[in-house]
Amino acid sequence: MMLDAAAVARLGEEVPLLEGIRTTRALRRLKPDPVPTGLIRKVCEAGTFAPSGGNRQPWRFIAVTEQARRAWVAERYQRAFHAYIGPALAAAREPSYPEAQRRNVLSALHLADHLAEAPVLLFVAGWMRRDMPQTQALFPAIQNILLACRAVGLGASLTTIHTSFGAEVDAWLGLPEGCPTCAMLPIGWPRGTYRRPVRNSIDQCLFYERYQQEV
Amino acid sequence: MMLDAAAVARLGEEVPLLEGIRTTRALRRLKPDPVPTGLIRKVCEAGTFAPSGGNRQPWRFIAVTEQARRAWVAERYQRAFHAYIGPALAAAREPSYPEAQRRNVLSALHLADHLAEAPVLLFVAGWMRRDMPQTQALFPAIQNILLACRAVGLGASLTTIHTSFGAEVDAWLGLPEGCPTCAMLPIGWPRGTYRRPVRNSIDQCLFYERYQQEV
Repeated sequence: MMLDAAAVARLGEEVPLLEGIRTTRALRRLKPDPVPTGLIRKVCEAGTFAPSGGNRQPWRFIAVTEQARRAWVAERYQRAFHAYIGPALAAAREPSYPEAQRRNVLSALHLADHLAEAPVLLFVAGWMRRDMPQTQALFPAIQNILLACRAVGLGASLTTIHTSFGAEVDAWLGLPEGCPTCAMLPIGWPRGTYRRPVRNSIDQCLFYERYQQEV
Repeated sequence: MMLDAAAVARLGEEVPLLEGIRTTRALRRLKPDPVPTGLIRKVCEAGTFAPSGGNRQPWRFIAVTEQARRAWVAERYQRAFHAYIGPALAAAREPSYPEAQRRNVLSALHLADHLAEAPVLLFVAGWMRRDMPQTQALFPAIQNILLACRAVGLGASLTTIHTSFGAEVDAWLGLPEGCPTCAMLPIGWPRGTYRRPVRNSIDQCLFYERYQQEV
């Protein structure tokens, strides 16, 4: 998809906030078509409006788009994924496994086996403070990016599996000491569509005044 | 503000997603007027649409609204805030201190000194996994709630200062072992208005292929 600057600026601006929140789900089946740089910039800019302690804005975004570099990540990611998910994968193939969870596992498997095809691997890193990652700022920024992808029609999902080889990735990305990656978002034009994901009722997790034993 | 169920369902539905993201800022000066229960439920429901590993949905929300209970939190919060922010507060009163940061510190101070007036203190807790809080799910859920507050016109902000007396709060809220609070969102009708917050340019924190030394 070719988009001039004006088209990039307009794209997704009309999507409503609450409806967008309710219909943002992980889209892990992505087309290999490239994503315009202006659009990567637009969704990452949404990330910068997240809150951060003392407005320190610790986030740093690194968009990996070169084919050979994506393949480098994909090879390691696939290996880590299969090591991590192996047991769950066998269970998910049993007929008795809950269908919604099976779809979830199989979609994650598809992503792992086709990661090199995702046109953008967006790494989110962040400056640490007092030797701690500022996750309370980085994950709100990530959620803003996922919602912005929803708005402009890009498919995206949040993964943290690469952290099992995080030090290797951080060095490969040229990140300085004290600014590790915490997540990777594979982004591209989706094969699936946005819609309301499967969730428990809010009434199962909202309490007034005091937590009540769950039934 | 009295709102029937239909009005709660309609409220904020027209706010655009991207513009909402860009104009969500911490609103810490809140009116004491109560927030309808249906609206607390509506913004928390937005939280449940965040992604979570294996769709485990570890979040639990506890809305503290009773006056005496809010005062219990406020007394401890104020003490923790002043212990934490004391040195920064003195610096922020110097004429040479950057104006945007000064406003930020003074707004946080106002919140700490008036916390008992906030009609809702929303605690966000989460089930741990492998002895770790699932922060990569809880903070996206929190960001969804902050954005939903923006949509319906409620003022909100993200605080973590209560974690300095977190064990005491968790016991007081009746939370079970393995499900600690990670954040508190004071929520109410705002005295201020939503607008674009002060942020660095995206071009200072977005990189392609490799991180580049910052200037």
